[in-house]
Amino acid sequence: MARLYFEDFVVGHVAEYGDKLVTPEEIKEFASEFDPQPMHLDEEAAKKTMVGGLCASGWHTCCMMMRIVADGYLLNSSSMGAPGVDEIRWLAPVRPGDRLRVRTTILDLREPKSRPDFGFVRTKFEVLNTTGDVVMHSTTNMMMGRRTPRPVQA
Amino acid sequence: MARLYFEDFVVGHVAEYGDKLVTPEEIKEFASEFDPQPMHLDEEAAKKTMVGGLCASGWHTCCMMMRIVADGYLLNSSSMGAPGVDEIRWLAPVRPGDRLRVRTTILDLREPKSRPDFGFVRTKFEVLNTTGDVVMHSTTNMMMGRRTPRPVQA
Repeated sequence: MARLYFEDFVVGHVAEYGDKLVTPEEIKEFASEFDPQPMHLDEEAAKKTMVGGLCASGWHTCCMMMRIVADGYLLNSSSMGAPGVDEIRWLAPVRPGDRLRVRTTILDLREPKSRPDFGFVRTKFEVLNTTGDVVMHSTTNMMMGRRTPRPVQA
Repeated sequence: MARLYFEDFVVGHVAEYGDKLVTPEEIKEFASEFDPQPMHLDEEAAKKTMVGGLCASGWHTCCMMMRIVADGYLLNSSSMGAPGVDEIRWLAPVRPGDRLRVRTTILDLREPKSRPDFGFVRTKFEVLNTTGDVVMHSTTNMMMGRRTPRPVQA
């Protein structure tokens, strides 16, 4: 696949990436390092919580999404990172045995006047589980380098 | 310290938690699992990127923030998680050797009419580095259980 630049992104384009199996070991390992709440750490303790069983930390889901997107296209692009993320929503628990994929939708493209070398690619990321439920969504303004600098108007 | 419930949160209250040393090994380990971009993986490769040297993945900073907050007060509270996060902004690179802390500011309190057992504690989280620069901020609506259910009005 050819390397992706800002010029290659099209508003409305939808794509899907990944097939990430979520294991109980990974859920617990992540939780023990970053989010040691009972529903992410231990099956028995998780049964007594609101979610009723072991589930991944919301931050773990963000991180698995990042990896799917990195492997899916970002590492083969001129990405320069992102200034932040808007509107993360955790909609349903991510459980052991789920297989996750990520659906991207290009929302809009913006070319900053002061920088002819890159543009912002506003992208919606939806994380889907095995049965196709959207378990999380977020929106990010990705900074994507241009293949050729934008001509500066006189 | 007494366990924290919704009733204990006060709008405008500011607190600080944590002292987390960021190591190059942790930056690379996280990146190799979740965000394998050159600026997070390898000192030499990172020098050639926009950030000019090894720095933590933005998601890694989110995860370190989560752990600081968990140890700081969340694990000793009636937290029921959060439906999502608004407005993550990564403002400056997090470097090896940085010591991170988190400043919380309570922005507002909201009691959903349909649920007498908890309330939303809208909280701003700022991640500060060794020199006191804000390297990241985010805002989250934390769901916090009440010590005593709110009386339902007749």
